[in-house]
Amino acid sequence: MKKHRSVKKKGALTGYSCHGRIWIENKGETFLGVGRVVLLQRIQEEGSIAAAARSMEMSYKHAWDLVDSMNRQASSPLVESSKGGKGGGGARITKAGEQAITDFMELQRRFKLFLERETAELKW
Amino acid sequence: MKKHRSVKKKGALTGYSCHGRIWIENKGETFLGVGRVVLLQRIQEEGSIAAAARSMEMSYKHAWDLVDSMNRQASSPLVESSKGGKGGGGARITKAGEQAITDFMELQRRFKLFLERETAELKW
Repeated sequence: MKKHRSVKKKGALTGYSCHGRIWIENKGETFLGVGRVVLLQRIQEEGSIAAAARSMEMSYKHAWDLVDSMNRQASSPLVESSKGGKGGGGARITKAGEQAITDFMELQRRFKLFLERETAELKW
Repeated sequence: MKKHRSVKKKGALTGYSCHGRIWIENKGETFLGVGRVVLLQRIQEEGSIAAAARSMEMSYKHAWDLVDSMNRQASSPLVESSKGGKGGGGARITKAGEQAITDFMELQRRFKLFLERETAELKW
């Protein structure tokens, strides 16, 4: 449908919208992303890596690897295991972990605003 | 602008950086993204969908499907085939296609600035 008349239609009015994904890397390796931050939040809620993994339908090994990756990269660990063991003892989020969750959520909020502004400006 | 002096280390100084990816959807379907825009640019350079696909190591069918998806969704086609045929005749980018490339690249540029600003503010 061509509509010469009006010049440019706005994306917000035409069904087009901007979407995206952001993450934080440290020397080329992913440090934090949406999935990792949800995992941190689930550990906070569930009190263990195993339960957090289950709630996300993620293998314990994968969850453990993600936690290990975050802990290795952070200047102080984000997750502290109270007991080790294969079945996974209890785990808690440290102050640094809480801060990481908060900071990433604020970054996500600013990114959402960026996407909303860009959607409003779309010319198609 | 608050400047505490010491307190928080900047991401830019510590190796952390923000990364991301953006794309444009139309009613839940991808309309434009980095890969699609590179495809448009290659069609512009190569003069055919087949040659553009080859230059990206993409199957002709996949490239054709992407072009079809963009053309169906745009208010006027982004790519015009001068001849059809299975082997793929010539193809050119329309004015609307040129505009889509330009607009997406400007969006990418603003997104890059957003990521740079956020990287500079990282607290880890």
